[in-house]
Amino acid sequence: MKSIVKKTILKVKPYIPGKPIEEVKRELGVSDVIKLASNENPYGPSPKVLKAIQRASRELNRYPDGDCYYLRQALAKKLKVSSNQLIFGNGSDELIILAVRAFAGPGDEVIIAKPSFMIYDIASRVEGATVKAIPLKGFRYDLAAMKKAVTKKTRIIFLGNPDNPSGMYLTKKEVTGFLKGLSNKVLVFFDEAYFEYVKARDYADTIGLLRAHKNIIVTRTFSKIYGLAGLRIGYGIGNAELIGLLNRIREPFNVNSLAQAAAMAVLKDQAYYRNLATRIAGQRQFLYRSFCGLGLKFIKTHTNFILLDVAKDASEVSRALLRKGVIVRDMTVWGLEGFIRVTIGTPKENQRFIKSLKEIL
Amino acid sequence: MKSIVKKTILKVKPYIPGKPIEEVKRELGVSDVIKLASNENPYGPSPKVLKAIQRASRELNRYPDGDCYYLRQALAKKLKVSSNQLIFGNGSDELIILAVRAFAGPGDEVIIAKPSFMIYDIASRVEGATVKAIPLKGFRYDLAAMKKAVTKKTRIIFLGNPDNPSGMYLTKKEVTGFLKGLSNKVLVFFDEAYFEYVKARDYADTIGLLRAHKNIIVTRTFSKIYGLAGLRIGYGIGNAELIGLLNRIREPFNVNSLAQAAAMAVLKDQAYYRNLATRIAGQRQFLYRSFCGLGLKFIKTHTNFILLDVAKDASEVSRALLRKGVIVRDMTVWGLEGFIRVTIGTPKENQRFIKSLKEIL
Repeated sequence: MKSIVKKTILKVKPYIPGKPIEEVKRELGVSDVIKLASNENPYGPSPKVLKAIQRASRELNRYPDGDCYYLRQALAKKLKVSSNQLIFGNGSDELIILAVRAFAGPGDEVIIAKPSFMIYDIASRVEGATVKAIPLKGFRYDLAAMKKAVTKKTRIIFLGNPDNPSGMYLTKKEVTGFLKGLSNKVLVFFDEAYFEYVKARDYADTIGLLRAHKNIIVTRTFSKIYGLAGLRIGYGIGNAELIGLLNRIREPFNVNSLAQAAAMAVLKDQAYYRNLATRIAGQRQFLYRSFCGLGLKFIKTHTNFILLDVAKDASEVSRALLRKGVIVRDMTVWGLEGFIRVTIGTPKENQRFIKSLKEIL
Repeated sequence: MKSIVKKTILKVKPYIPGKPIEEVKRELGVSDVIKLASNENPYGPSPKVLKAIQRASRELNRYPDGDCYYLRQALAKKLKVSSNQLIFGNGSDELIILAVRAFAGPGDEVIIAKPSFMIYDIASRVEGATVKAIPLKGFRYDLAAMKKAVTKKTRIIFLGNPDNPSGMYLTKKEVTGFLKGLSNKVLVFFDEAYFEYVKARDYADTIGLLRAHKNIIVTRTFSKIYGLAGLRIGYGIGNAELIGLLNRIREPFNVNSLAQAAAMAVLKDQAYYRNLATRIAGQRQFLYRSFCGLGLKFIKTHTNFILLDVAKDASEVSRALLRKGVIVRDMTVWGLEGFIRVTIGTPKENQRFIKSLKEIL
């Protein structure tokens, strides 16, 4: 079928299936493996969320509510937007793909940072768009260079805020300056997957910008601080017209019933998740102190992951950590040589990671 | 953003959000509503499936296994295919969309039956492909006309087997004849969502055809007889090369963890689901007898839904049923005037449906 598949798809790197932790354990002969590689929340869902899932499970023979009606009402109220300004996705990943499918095709350009979240790049290439990747400058988005890269062919600019893998955020002033004079025929996609972790006062209020800018979409997720990565639910906020266009091409039942029920329960259990964020912030300080103690440089983060300069071959360090049962992300493939990205875990996990790292270095 | 969205998307009918049953109840002032409209299994998941979901819920903070590793092994064994011949989707809907995205674009043609499952048509139009809809002939696929419609531009032919909304199936002989002489540059997409309901001996064994035909994909789902519509999981079976191409464009975490756990439990609990299929078959006979008693014509089905000729305005009959708290599908919008489609429910639900229908007619 290769001869008839769309040419752009042949250019995309083939999918390399990952193995579940259980298989990694078996292959390495390690019984106790900790995963600090995917920026997950190390704590499970709240008891109220688990109860909501159990209740909703009995109705799984029914199709999900394709409109996420109740969740939509609750979230619109919380965010102070209209319910038709929201779209829900099978994770916010799906919303990235929908935006690219709607706006970018052959001959169009998409601007991303380099490095940044891989899905921006892959989704754009699948649609046949040209990707312009603008290198980070001092581990921050080079907004001036990104704006300069805009041409008449530019359709989407992806801004991770905070950004993965740097963990840096864009300030209100930076975002306002960036949008000023930018063509309103370019979709500015703010990916705020780690929104809930940011405590900085000058963090850009992108929802506040929606009224003046109809070319903005903001996405957030229940996969990170809210600990529902396994259930797949994220959402987008934008002008009603823009959201309506994206809704035309999404699957009618893209968000499963349990994800909807769990997300509703999360919204009602904010105290539990605020407490988790505080715990993660405390562990962030523990890791900072430990890195300083080891004489290692790192990028100060506003998320639950840290970019760490191991001052050695990062692939080797990652492999050595893996042999000790600690999974981190080797940043070599992202073009950040000498760096690993580590997710902030539980106190026990972080201590084990630091101990293992010390032994290796 | 309408000025910069892809033109093909503007031609797609805007998404009209449906309301959950609870909202319908509130609006109609009916407290007890039964839904016989979406070809769902009227029974909930098996106790073993519920237990598997509960167990897996504790790990929801982790991303799903993007490769569905364990489910893949189990299903490959059951179906006697290689594990790289399988792809999993967020419902089989997603696999329809992936196939269209991979193979059909502007200038290409997609052949479907008229009427047939709406996603074939919508997905093709979104991608800008031309849809050739070949009318059913005596409520069966007109395979001769569909084959005649193939040109050099044809990329995909969708064959629902059994078909929705007719409930008819294609025989081994029909399928073999259809494939004979058909260009291998056309993807033949067998949608077997209702596979498990078919008991006919001459039902086409499409998996058996995969060795000789590399241009076939077969999709099935856990949404129908297996009662997991709310969790979203379906799968596709095809030649490894074809499956590999589709895997390139799917989201890395498209199938949630609970769906994977539930599907595994379903495979281990086949006796429970065989029993459900028998119950549904019994109720099918009850409905046939009742329709005969009412002097109504219907299409004999090989699925869990029946196309019924109400010999009146089907929209009016559907609305009248709704007022009595019975939701069925009005087939007028599918171009089948005078017909409703009713899903086979529990004995209690079917009796109530027949009673309400009698009162209306």
